[in-house]
Amino acid sequence: MRDLLVEWSREAGLEVTVDRIGNIFARRRGRSASASPVALGSHLDTQVHGGRYDGVLGVLGALEAVHALDDAGIETERAIEVVCWTDEEGARFHRSMLGSSVFTGALSLEEGLAHTDERNVSVAQALDRIGYAGEAPVPGHRLHAYLELHIEQAAVLEAAGVDVGIVDSSYPIFHLDVHFEGRTAHSGPTPMEQRRNALTAAAHAIVAVDAIPRAHGPDAKSTTSTIRVWPNRSGIIASSADLRFDFRHPQEAVVEQMRAEIEDAVAKAARASNVDAYIRSRTRFGDARFDPAIVGTLERLAAALEVPAMRLPTQAGHDALVIAAVAPTAMLFCPCRDGVSHHPDEDVDRRRVLPSVRLLAEAALALAGPIDA
Amino acid sequence: MRDLLVEWSREAGLEVTVDRIGNIFARRRGRSASASPVALGSHLDTQVHGGRYDGVLGVLGALEAVHALDDAGIETERAIEVVCWTDEEGARFHRSMLGSSVFTGALSLEEGLAHTDERNVSVAQALDRIGYAGEAPVPGHRLHAYLELHIEQAAVLEAAGVDVGIVDSSYPIFHLDVHFEGRTAHSGPTPMEQRRNALTAAAHAIVAVDAIPRAHGPDAKSTTSTIRVWPNRSGIIASSADLRFDFRHPQEAVVEQMRAEIEDAVAKAARASNVDAYIRSRTRFGDARFDPAIVGTLERLAAALEVPAMRLPTQAGHDALVIAAVAPTAMLFCPCRDGVSHHPDEDVDRRRVLPSVRLLAEAALALAGPIDA
Repeated sequence: MRDLLVEWSREAGLEVTVDRIGNIFARRRGRSASASPVALGSHLDTQVHGGRYDGVLGVLGALEAVHALDDAGIETERAIEVVCWTDEEGARFHRSMLGSSVFTGALSLEEGLAHTDERNVSVAQALDRIGYAGEAPVPGHRLHAYLELHIEQAAVLEAAGVDVGIVDSSYPIFHLDVHFEGRTAHSGPTPMEQRRNALTAAAHAIVAVDAIPRAHGPDAKSTTSTIRVWPNRSGIIASSADLRFDFRHPQEAVVEQMRAEIEDAVAKAARASNVDAYIRSRTRFGDARFDPAIVGTLERLAAALEVPAMRLPTQAGHDALVIAAVAPTAMLFCPCRDGVSHHPDEDVDRRRVLPSVRLLAEAALALAGPIDA
Repeated sequence: MRDLLVEWSREAGLEVTVDRIGNIFARRRGRSASASPVALGSHLDTQVHGGRYDGVLGVLGALEAVHALDDAGIETERAIEVVCWTDEEGARFHRSMLGSSVFTGALSLEEGLAHTDERNVSVAQALDRIGYAGEAPVPGHRLHAYLELHIEQAAVLEAAGVDVGIVDSSYPIFHLDVHFEGRTAHSGPTPMEQRRNALTAAAHAIVAVDAIPRAHGPDAKSTTSTIRVWPNRSGIIASSADLRFDFRHPQEAVVEQMRAEIEDAVAKAARASNVDAYIRSRTRFGDARFDPAIVGTLERLAAALEVPAMRLPTQAGHDALVIAAVAPTAMLFCPCRDGVSHHPDEDVDRRRVLPSVRLLAEAALALAGPIDA
């Protein structure tokens, strides 16, 4: 996929550079060689059981926007860059938004390169193997603005019958990493009341975490996304279980309430199984507000183009939330069928995608500064 | 450990043979070269977080019994064999009682050798690497009798203040392998009521399986011993979960009742998470009654030696339950501290072990036929 992007970018006359964490930048020159570029992009990596549009649409949409400017013979003051960020999903190296985080400096290059997959291959080795351990320095160059087009991954646009979502903010997203510590024992003779079973504690917590958001309305979501159990073998009671909880709601107060309820549930689950519970980390993400000026520009352009659009927050994490810390940023959403994502059935209606690609091109043009012919 | 056993066996003048699945037989000759031997043994492998006595005690106890006969200058009509069965726990290759099952023909050699560990190393490769892919054929030679000394792995003897357990039977042991099949989706935006989360279904089932035995008295035990979840990654809802349940009770009717309740709980857990549930296999084990004549011999010898002993069933699986299908078999239990097993704290009081080792030697002598000097 990277090779295809590079090939297509070069065919489009773009200048390709790769940075040290493998982020790809395909640059359409502007009149000013020194002005910071307008970047458009997303990611090409997917979940292990993901679909064809999550990420890919935003990269190809950006390339299409550049093609549209070329076709129209339009030049801009600033350069426009098509960007592919390395490993947004974290599916292989277990660190989401890896490339954008190293680009902004939120994550050090050393730490980013050191992440390993399940076969102990590091990011550094994997990039080297595919020839994408580039030379452009990180933290990276200044961006005048960053725009990311993405499938919505929810069904709000579809339900509203609106084709373009202008994303102005994000749900606060919490990750809670919890460790339960019990004691191995024989799974046969050990009396039930003497057990210190970390797996049953984990199960109580998983059930609670699935129930908690239901009391907080349809916007509340919480998930146990990963579980690791040890020794996890026949004949022996588990002595440790690690869970990652993911919970979200647009209102911070509700997220905090959910956090308190989940932490109570963890403590209660531990007591029920006579094990110890430790909160290993509380990670908060997605508090970014996108740039009001860019959001305003998108709304004005949508109105001028007579493209029905609506503002909405993102419920999912995106590279744009990372980039927002270093550059004025906003996102565009297009509908995806039934809100299905992270599944091979992920699908879009081409006609309902084109308006947001058009808006992306128009916004890039507006932000990069058209040069009057 | 195998090398040490072979070294010590040869030092004791025993003739060592290894069969094709790696079982080790160290033979003390009897007067009759053709009569089938009396075998004494257990296993040297342990759980990944196991103790020093589970299995090892029975092998070294057998070797000590042979030493005692030597020290007393006693010869027997039949040979006596010290046996180490390959991989009783199944901790590495996920097939418990592997060596004894291949010895009896309950498992084919091909199937036994083909089991693999988590790094895809097969039993055949592992045996070859350590030099224990022997040449003795399987299914193996006829045994006149088989005796296995083992730590009790429960606290019945300790509670009764009795040092020797004469094991006459086993709890029926059931394994139920269950698969839940849901659907991957984004762990952020996907509405709670649209999820088909296999992990939450698994959690409901684990909680139920931990609760069910508590209504059936202190003899009932049930455990979820293993869980495998897929994709098990941050950001994506799990579409599949595989659980292994292990449940036991001395009365078959109660085990059947527990099985029905567990299967109901699985169906209910699946409905609660809107996923499908499949029972992959129902495996029953441990219905063996040990040989009444050998049990009677052990009781008479204990009485003659004035060693307090009690009959009891085993709650755990053992190679002896497999061997019982092809040879008259019984087991001896000694107390282990607090019933702790499958944990490094596993411990025994040496003084409380010696009576059962002595009984083992006396029984071997009685079964092998002493030759009057």
